[in-house]
Amino acid sequence: MITLASDFGTPYPAAMKGVILQESDARLVDVAHDFPRQDVRAAAFWCRETLPYFPPAVHLVVVDPGVGTDRDAVVVRAGDHALVGPDNGVLLPAARRIAERAAESDSEKEPTVDCFVYEYADPASSTFHGRDVFAPAAAEVHEAGVDALASLPAVSRVETVSVTEAPNALVDCRFPEASVEGSEARGEVLVVDDFGNAITNVPGSFLDGKTGTEIAVNGTPAPAVTAFAEVGEGERLVTVGSHGYVECDVNRGRGDEAFGLAPGDEVVLSE
Amino acid sequence: MITLASDFGTPYPAAMKGVILQESDARLVDVAHDFPRQDVRAAAFWCRETLPYFPPAVHLVVVDPGVGTDRDAVVVRAGDHALVGPDNGVLLPAARRIAERAAESDSEKEPTVDCFVYEYADPASSTFHGRDVFAPAAAEVHEAGVDALASLPAVSRVETVSVTEAPNALVDCRFPEASVEGSEARGEVLVVDDFGNAITNVPGSFLDGKTGTEIAVNGTPAPAVTAFAEVGEGERLVTVGSHGYVECDVNRGRGDEAFGLAPGDEVVLSE
Amino acid sequence: MITLASDFGTPYPAAMKGVILQESDARLVDVAHDFPRQDVRAAAFWCRETLPYFPPAVHLVVVDPGVGTDRDAVVVRAGDHALVGPDNGVLLPAARRIAERAAESDSEKEPTVDCFVYEYADPASSTFHGRDVFAPAAAEVHEAGVDALASLPAVSRVETVSVTEAPNALVDCRFPEASVEGSEARGEVLVVDDFGNAITNVPGSFLDGKTGTEIAVNGTPAPAVTAFAEVGEGERLVTVGSHGYVECDVNRGRGDEAFGLAPGDEVVLSE
Repeated sequence: MITLASDFGTPYPAAMKGVILQESDARLVDVAHDFPRQDVRAAAFWCRETLPYFPPAVHLVVVDPGVGTDRDAVVVRAGDHALVGPDNGVLLPAARRIAERAAESDSEKEPTVDCFVYEYADPASSTFHGRDVFAPAAAEVHEAGVDALASLPAVSRVETVSVTEAPNALVDCRFPEASVEGSEARGEVLVVDDFGNAITNVPGSFLDGKTGTEIAVNGTPAPAVTAFAEVGEGERLVTVGSHGYVECDVNRGRGDEAFGLAPGDEVVLSE
Repeated sequence: MITLASDFGTPYPAAMKGVILQESDARLVDVAHDFPRQDVRAAAFWCRETLPYFPPAVHLVVVDPGVGTDRDAVVVRAGDHALVGPDNGVLLPAARRIAERAAESDSEKEPTVDCFVYEYADPASSTFHGRDVFAPAAAEVHEAGVDALASLPAVSRVETVSVTEAPNALVDCRFPEASVEGSEARGEVLVVDDFGNAITNVPGSFLDGKTGTEIAVNGTPAPAVTAFAEVGEGERLVTVGSHGYVECDVNRGRGDEAFGLAPGDEVVLSE
Repeated sequence: MITLASDFGTPYPAAMKGVILQESDARLVDVAHDFPRQDVRAAAFWCRETLPYFPPAVHLVVVDPGVGTDRDAVVVRAGDHALVGPDNGVLLPAARRIAERAAESDSEKEPTVDCFVYEYADPASSTFHGRDVFAPAAAEVHEAGVDALASLPAVSRVETVSVTEAPNALVDCRFPEASVEGSEARGEVLVVDDFGNAITNVPGSFLDGKTGTEIAVNGTPAPAVTAFAEVGEGERLVTVGSHGYVECDVNRGRGDEAFGLAPGDEVVLSE
């Protein structure tokens, strides 16, 4: 199985699929091709929130503002999964989450990720490495098998790092952490989803015991609830979303607009 | 085969697919994930117009404004198909259409649908039952087989109803019916499609014998034609669309804008 | 394998897939369903740039402003591929490119395409031949096999033409050619992609030896580069895109807006 994620819109992902299918009979599953354009952090977030739900797979992720420069192509292995993409950090949060889940089911194992560089020859284009570099690489890794990927001539192991360490040789991507002190949390909006839900980095545990109370979001009050339908249509709410973070939402509406929040904005939550 | 339909946009459907693929090797086919947000009636319409074209399958449909409340998860069986989703009526129009088609090929059979409740344990999230309740349920039904779904411990049969009856225990969804008197039809816009075609609930038979004449749509005249290209580019037309209803369209343009029509609007058609 | 491309948006492609899957177990791969509405030339361009990357397949392409008129349904065979769609030229540029690639690997072979008409009975609708004519035709061609398609009763061979000739009986589609004289090129914008890159018909070779120099695009200067990241965020550039043409782009922005270019616009490039 090969999953595909990018910021390519259409129809460029079809060229990647064609290239892969020339080399592999793998099942192909689209994750998304409308990640926010050239936004590595947003792509890394969404990959972390979707890829770990898949069974063992090769995950092709191409959000690549450095295409055509000398940035490397990399493969990151976590558990029985391999992630293939540019060396800009986009693969690492998902890889760590997958490694953590794999380690949970084997309590003696320290969660680690294996980092590899994939050496590519001069590609046909300098602007579409998704088609000319990463798709062939994903097909090659898939056909070799995740366990055997280190034996591929194009692949060189660089390092194996714990999920708590930054890699030395690869570009990393970490999300900012919120601070919680007493009844106040300070964080930021990580992403806004298609519904308009403003997903913060404040851990859901901040709302423990607060269900039914009013929470101020940068001064704007909204009830803490467990289901959207607990407030009227068009009304604000805060809840613990499916990612485990506090979200600022509107029932049947857009939380980003109602709370005036965009990705990267600071958020102060208080009782 | 499992089809997937939702109002989730991206990338949430990918998490559903990952969860299903953990449990099943089923072919996955996307129907749409951009149904009008939390609009149960529109989703029910589009499911009715697409799902019956599929061979026997499990159809996962998640348009779920009541997520996190105590609304049930349900399975509806029709012919050799099973539909899985929330108990808000979204499954029933498609299920009835599938049952009617199955009965057509077996003329002694009265078309009926079997209604089941699917009991789910506390899901990981209260906001994403697509991932935590419905995707696993669809995988489970698929692996058991549509014929054997009643034997699943989580599944309880509630009732079997004729397609002409409302279920007693499940929430229903019916589309309003138009009235036709002489040369006038009164109905409403059911949905507007991606082309901007305003699809009414007036049966296509209203246009029988009227091809080439002018029809007034809420007073705005447009010719009744059988092909868009019979009028000039940018010109209004009325025609019998692929759903069997009268549509108010524009050749290479948007009918909703040209006629000033939106879903739910009243439409009076007259010769 | 059957690929699907259209301007249908959603959820109409799902009905096509259901119809195909009633008759075939083929792998289905979406190319795109958001081609510019009823724009045959744009669809022909994108098909040419994506379909040749696929292994042998049946390619279903439905961009069909003449739906419901007496335009034919056609099948075009190129190499081991077959393309199915309306007789409006949309299939031919991709078919020629596939034929050229097939001939490259067999240097004695003159690249040709085989043109067929597919005779269809009265379809269920006059507005959705994608579902009622082309999807069944694609399934039928796939099940017969590309080599054997001429033996299908619905299929009649019309002619075999070299890629340099226009067919006599089918509607053709050719892209305009740019003229290059000395340090000036005159062409036009063929398409704008999802990134906002304005893709011209000026061959990439026009930029040979010009990397690092300023190019005037209708008088607006921009550096000729090989990677987007060679200019600052939000800055204009010209480069050879992945289609082999000169593109007018912006790093992390939209070239069409920055250069004031839309499909069909004339472009004069000069040093």
